[in-house]
Amino acid sequence: MFYFLMDLLGTVAFAISGVLVAMDKRLDLFGVFIIAFVTAVGGGTLRDLLIGNTPVAWMLESTYIITIIGTVIPAIIFREKLRYLRKSFFLFDTLGIGLYTMVGIEKGLNANLLPVMCIILGTITASFGGVIRDILCNEIPVIFRKEIYATACIVGGSSYFLLRKLPLGDEYVYLASILIVIGIRLVAVKYKIALPGIYKTK
Amino acid sequence: MFYFLMDLLGTVAFAISGVLVAMDKRLDLFGVFIIAFVTAVGGGTLRDLLIGNTPVAWMLESTYIITIIGTVIPAIIFREKLRYLRKSFFLFDTLGIGLYTMVGIEKGLNANLLPVMCIILGTITASFGGVIRDILCNEIPVIFRKEIYATACIVGGSSYFLLRKLPLGDEYVYLASILIVIGIRLVAVKYKIALPGIYKTK
Amino acid sequence: MFYFLMDLLGTVAFAISGVLVAMDKRLDLFGVFIIAFVTAVGGGTLRDLLIGNTPVAWMLESTYIITIIGTVIPAIIFREKLRYLRKSFFLFDTLGIGLYTMVGIEKGLNANLLPVMCIILGTITASFGGVIRDILCNEIPVIFRKEIYATACIVGGSSYFLLRKLPLGDEYVYLASILIVIGIRLVAVKYKIALPGIYKTK
Repeated sequence: MFYFLMDLLGTVAFAISGVLVAMDKRLDLFGVFIIAFVTAVGGGTLRDLLIGNTPVAWMLESTYIITIIGTVIPAIIFREKLRYLRKSFFLFDTLGIGLYTMVGIEKGLNANLLPVMCIILGTITASFGGVIRDILCNEIPVIFRKEIYATACIVGGSSYFLLRKLPLGDEYVYLASILIVIGIRLVAVKYKIALPGIYKTK
Repeated sequence: MFYFLMDLLGTVAFAISGVLVAMDKRLDLFGVFIIAFVTAVGGGTLRDLLIGNTPVAWMLESTYIITIIGTVIPAIIFREKLRYLRKSFFLFDTLGIGLYTMVGIEKGLNANLLPVMCIILGTITASFGGVIRDILCNEIPVIFRKEIYATACIVGGSSYFLLRKLPLGDEYVYLASILIVIGIRLVAVKYKIALPGIYKTK
Repeated sequence: MFYFLMDLLGTVAFAISGVLVAMDKRLDLFGVFIIAFVTAVGGGTLRDLLIGNTPVAWMLESTYIITIIGTVIPAIIFREKLRYLRKSFFLFDTLGIGLYTMVGIEKGLNANLLPVMCIILGTITASFGGVIRDILCNEIPVIFRKEIYATACIVGGSSYFLLRKLPLGDEYVYLASILIVIGIRLVAVKYKIALPGIYKTK
């Protein structure tokens, strides 16, 4: 239940981030909807394809589609106001990353995969929707260039496997890991922390 | 049988549309062949991956590959003449969309999916080959920008589920839905109808 | 065992080719790692998804990930020196293509697919990682434009099915096919042989 709610909240957060990018590219109504859709379900779709055997989650449950439609329509109607709320959406998006990371890890554990694969699946769930969004909009995916994004997922995901060894309730470990992902991203963006450069500045 | 023939006709139509785009980008022989191939089978491949359990259709039947090769070779040989036939190919492509939409819906029904998922699968089957084609050619996919394309699939697919409730033979419902997809696209292109704009014109 | 070793060698070769392209695009540390990763496993992932039923190879074995990490870290540390070794890496990449082609054919045979599908799977295994690499870096994939690359895989793969009919040991047929792929690419690059042009030069 908790797990399902997390998944839906993440879906709303990512759908809105898709709408914002698609409208920057001035796509038509259908384009906006599709970009919102792939941003929201793209990561989970790739995760489910890689795990195999599990069917792709959103095919079996109309909840995802309904949630996305119910997010995109008001987002388009109130599009003028969305602009003023960019800061809140950044928070939303960050929340989505934290939630989706743990959803991916959970699915990996259910499929009896190694911790390292679970962490990769969590990172894919959280970040790949944005990668597809950027590819469809003909951009080099933003996460490859400047943001601490996937790194936050990887660190948060690893923390989960460490914290699990402590005598804590499962919900606390969950929550702590989500907060670690969110915290790292917020701190990184606030203080403009990026991965160490590997190029000589020109 | 009818269903299989529809699938092959759609394959020819989409392969030719792939050849035309690839030659505009001046790709080499292999590039032209690959773009024709992904345009023709890309939508069905994504559909089959999402449904899971069904193997990807073109892997099990050499008919698809043979059809594509048998389309691409003459298309390349007579490439000078293809240019004069653009209008006919637009009709071909539109036919392909109608046919593929119903192929996708049929596969969704066979997998016992909800109507809304079947309509999505129909739309993916019909439009995703073109999306991959455009991504590989480094363009923002055309269907996100200006054409009534996916919308035609969605309306035609929805009609199928409505018409099915009437006391009509299955073939007629099929045919009517295909004609609705084709009709919407033809009318939209002829009268330059697009989705309502959501941006203030600058 | 031999087969597994081939797979790992190919992984190293492709990971390095990914690092080189990602650094040309000045991606950050994470971006470099991801591009190396998808270049190395992208072709095999698509192959396994298309075959279905088999789980994606790198999810079940941490060897691939460890190999890639163990390749990328020294490649980044010694990045200044990598530049001087481009020629050796071209050889590496060519070796990778030969090896991966046969890995893909082997997997297709295990899944009881037709020879033509096995050859396609071999070609996908060898070339699709590079295609994803180029898409993520926002380039038209290089193999669609000028290099004899996939053609080498297709010819080598076809040779395998011809040579198999001769009274030779399996390892020799394997080795000969790999050498054919490698040989064609080396000769093509050395003598600047490309597929016949299909456009009038302007």
